Amino acid sequence: MIPAETRRAAVLAAQGKAPFDLLLTGGILVDVALGELRPADIGITGGLIASVHPPGTRSDAAEVHDLSGRFLSPGFVDSHLHFESSFMAPADYASVVVPQGTTTTVWDPHELANVLGVPGVRWAVERARGLPLRVLVAAPSCVPSAPGLELAGAEIGPEEMAEMLSWPEVSGVAEVMDMAGVLSGSARMEGIVASGMASGKNVNGHARDLIGPALQAYVASGVTSDHEIMGPEDFLQKLRAGLTVELRGSHDAVLPGVVAAINALPSLPPTLVTCTDDIFPDELVEKGGLRDTLARLVTYGLPPIHALKMATLHAALRLKRDDIGLLAPGRLAEVVVLSDLTGMVVERVYVGGRLVARDGAMLAPLPRDLPADSPRDTVHIPPQPPEAFELRPHGVANGRVRLPVVGGARVVHWAEAEVEVTNGVAAVPPGHALIAVLHRHGRRDPAPVVCLADGWGEPRGAVATTISHDNHNLLVIGRDVRDMAAAANALIACGGGIAVAQGGEVQAAMPLPIAGLLAETPPAETAAAFSRLRAAADRVMDWKPPFRVFRGITGISLACNPGPHPTDLGISDGGTGALRDPAEPVLAATG
Amino acid sequence: MIPAETRRAAVLAAQGKAPFDLLLTGGILVDVALGELRPADIGITGGLIASVHPPGTRSDAAEVHDLSGRFLSPGFVDSHLHFESSFMAPADYASVVVPQGTTTTVWDPHELANVLGVPGVRWAVERARGLPLRVLVAAPSCVPSAPGLELAGAEIGPEEMAEMLSWPEVSGVAEVMDMAGVLSGSARMEGIVASGMASGKNVNGHARDLIGPALQAYVASGVTSDHEIMGPEDFLQKLRAGLTVELRGSHDAVLPGVVAAINALPSLPPTLVTCTDDIFPDELVEKGGLRDTLARLVTYGLPPIHALKMATLHAALRLKRDDIGLLAPGRLAEVVVLSDLTGMVVERVYVGGRLVARDGAMLAPLPRDLPADSPRDTVHIPPQPPEAFELRPHGVANGRVRLPVVGGARVVHWAEAEVEVTNGVAAVPPGHALIAVLHRHGRRDPAPVVCLADGWGEPRGAVATTISHDNHNLLVIGRDVRDMAAAANALIACGGGIAVAQGGEVQAAMPLPIAGLLAETPPAETAAAFSRLRAAADRVMDWKPPFRVFRGITGISLACNPGPHPTDLGISDGGTGALRDPAEPVLAATG
Repeated sequence: MIPAETRRAAVLAAQGKAPFDLLLTGGILVDVALGELRPADIGITGGLIASVHPPGTRSDAAEVHDLSGRFLSPGFVDSHLHFESSFMAPADYASVVVPQGTTTTVWDPHELANVLGVPGVRWAVERARGLPLRVLVAAPSCVPSAPGLELAGAEIGPEEMAEMLSWPEVSGVAEVMDMAGVLSGSARMEGIVASGMASGKNVNGHARDLIGPALQAYVASGVTSDHEIMGPEDFLQKLRAGLTVELRGSHDAVLPGVVAAINALPSLPPTLVTCTDDIFPDELVEKGGLRDTLARLVTYGLPPIHALKMATLHAALRLKRDDIGLLAPGRLAEVVVLSDLTGMVVERVYVGGRLVARDGAMLAPLPRDLPADSPRDTVHIPPQPPEAFELRPHGVANGRVRLPVVGGARVVHWAEAEVEVTNGVAAVPPGHALIAVLHRHGRRDPAPVVCLADGWGEPRGAVATTISHDNHNLLVIGRDVRDMAAAANALIACGGGIAVAQGGEVQAAMPLPIAGLLAETPPAETAAAFSRLRAAADRVMDWKPPFRVFRGITGISLACNPGPHPTDLGISDGGTGALRDPAEPVLAATG
Repeated sequence: MIPAETRRAAVLAAQGKAPFDLLLTGGILVDVALGELRPADIGITGGLIASVHPPGTRSDAAEVHDLSGRFLSPGFVDSHLHFESSFMAPADYASVVVPQGTTTTVWDPHELANVLGVPGVRWAVERARGLPLRVLVAAPSCVPSAPGLELAGAEIGPEEMAEMLSWPEVSGVAEVMDMAGVLSGSARMEGIVASGMASGKNVNGHARDLIGPALQAYVASGVTSDHEIMGPEDFLQKLRAGLTVELRGSHDAVLPGVVAAINALPSLPPTLVTCTDDIFPDELVEKGGLRDTLARLVTYGLPPIHALKMATLHAALRLKRDDIGLLAPGRLAEVVVLSDLTGMVVERVYVGGRLVARDGAMLAPLPRDLPADSPRDTVHIPPQPPEAFELRPHGVANGRVRLPVVGGARVVHWAEAEVEVTNGVAAVPPGHALIAVLHRHGRRDPAPVVCLADGWGEPRGAVATTISHDNHNLLVIGRDVRDMAAAANALIACGGGIAVAQGGEVQAAMPLPIAGLLAETPPAETAAAFSRLRAAADRVMDWKPPFRVFRGITGISLACNPGPHPTDLGISDGGTGALRDPAEPVLAATG
């Protein structure tokens, strides 16, 4: 809240009755309301824009910054993301993205919540204070994402949702992922969505693969946005269903077709915004979050001013805020200075009326904030012997048997494979891998649940992770149980993270001690550690494209999505609600 | 709030697991998000849209309405208006505008508040319940509009504002008219705007004639909209200042130039909405409120879909509402069926999922609601003799003297005139009229304050009104004091209204017994009575164009606007804060 004195001072300064604190001259304003570029100077008083006026008409200011030839945009709004995907707590995340123009984020701390429940969200809220980045927290709605198909670290129901929505820092209900629950009218999802509507805050969605009648039903429930765009067809169906589409940068292959669809529309829908969703730390440090998404949208043919509208005014309208989204008097002085709109090159960022970042770096480091009582020690699993990772089909000591298979590495389908069983242990067939999930939250038996998977090639080692959407149990992929045990035990020992093992030895490990999700190292170190991990993984995994291997591994257990996903309870299917025992032989097809 | 059962039923119906309650088939949907027209059927469950789907894909519904070849629009939102301008209480107003497509209004009961204070707003809120028209009440911010320049019936300060904003029926702060107070940082206006910002509700503006630095300062104060558009130049300046512009239909001459300016923009700003502001009852009954504004915008060249965007989705975004503004699942089933977009011809209106109006009339009459304890007897003035209306210059018994003059009938300027004084009484010079204002709220001496005016021609009688923006004192215009007394006394006798007198006799009178502002007659009678009044006034007044005579007379005392305006305290100037005694002679210019 801007103090009354500041507002009074801005009213006086706008009239020329007092000098501005800061005057930005010579810039070209990106007017995201009218869709025009025009020369304008901006007078700033305290944290407020006091005046946007014709160039050169005022020169009285305590400080004048000449921005000749530069473009001035409102601060970028990242409409949906998970800081956890970058392994960074808020201060670290802010130090990376603010210099790249992001000044507002809608953070769904869904991963923290799945490990820690409401206290994890509270921890997130507390860590988000006092930053040059506005962090609006969305209250995780799907903890777990698929009840009955997985066991996460906590359960959030309508009561917990109502509690979180009562916090002023919470801007709405985070992505409603339990699509099956919504469509079947589960009391839990009905209650959670109703809490959101009653609060007057946003009810955000996750409508993966929903089109046609199912999409209409999902939207009828009261959900008002979606970011799970897979192509132009579902994109247009979702806009036409009245959803605000949060077009995300994390799925790059989708963007060219969607941009073509946007450009074919009669006008840019005000219900179209943009977000990053998930970015790994090395990509974040290298490319800079939403700025990179905007640059790619432009590369794929979107007019730069459309990209900026989505990232600013449209997002402010979605957030029901009048204080951000435009460079106009009375709004907060958050200004992004770009040298080039095509490449979205950010030179400077002003927040609170002050220059806070220049040429990609904060002018002053942000105090890091990971207090001693932060949630550590969240991997409740004893060390595991290699044999625990063996796949042992029920009721078969020796011979051949068919087992269910999680088919496909990112886009999954149900499959089956015939395996040779010797002394109760199934040999992993050619072209297949094992995936083991170990419950790590102390709520049930942590013994590995092991299944067959294809589409990953033949791992020459193992990768283990406690980031495993969204239950965040310990998941291991490999072929050799010694490698799998080594990778898993490394994480059990260090309180979670990601590890790569080969030849029975750990090759690289990245500890993520906060909830098994977040690093304690500064962003540059986190990014470097992750790069080393990628290099180690490249020697182990040959799924193509290799740079997506971690996205594939950490996403394979997302139980709410349609198709087979391995969880600590078995192989689940969010589309049908099925839960299958991966060790239960299937009858061979007749004929 | 939609009941949980209804929402659950809609989710089922959208999936084909239950029939719809109502299916609208064959229509062409006006998609105000994407800017496209496309064939679509709409399935409705209870008061909710359950599904918007390709034509003919569903036929299971309790009722099916064939709307082949018709256009389907979301209900229209009138973003700013005063029911009082149509002399109608909410139920009467609704019965006229709902059949013409208006389903949401933002009502500023500013006139009631200036007569009655907060209890007047409470009366407004209570009368607005249970209608097929959504009435969002904006809390009057400027009671009086110009403190010190007029005395209204009440005073509303920051405390009263905070109280009204705490009511759920109140959607924001109504037009902030005391521009001088805002620009000078008056504690009252600062407090009122701060209350609005703290409430999270909209702070609506009135930025008449503000451009340049004054406009920037006004907007810096926290006000976020304006409807006082006078031409393309201030229109564009206001949009560029980040204001939501509520383009109004009441000032028709302004619209062609503004439409040309809109059409020259690269895109339609999402910050552009539309409203009616003030409509007299006969025009309202004949033309139908916002529908007529939209039709005229189209006549002046605005694409129909742009007009509809302004009246629907853009307005919903301004109101920060996700439940109206689009024909999409999960939104309220408020559908306007048009046979023609160019003429904006409304055939049917659905509200709450039911057909409520057809061919310009409600299907069932709305219960009228003017309870016995409604505010009557608000004209606290004893009968006045003709001599009370004489203009008596101070300190002059006989001879010639110069007096200040309210110059101009609608666009005013300061003027002077030389008058002949005989026995203390000034003769009205050729081309001039007298305007008398009698304080009617019982808060000071009700004796007429009489001044000279030009620009009205030479009245051949008198017109008196207790609608006199915004102090709503009793105002009389004429040349002959017998006519002025006759007209004024008619209103004193009937509790307020409008009267026309000629030859010392009342020719037509329209009682407005509720607060001296609203009629007790049904809309058709009110319209007919006003037509008779116009006819009588046409014989008395020859200001051109004659049909605007009442707008001119009722608006001449609007003290917050720049230039001279007669009030019960003298001749005020909202631009300079000056208050002059109309009977105080001015020194002749030298040389």
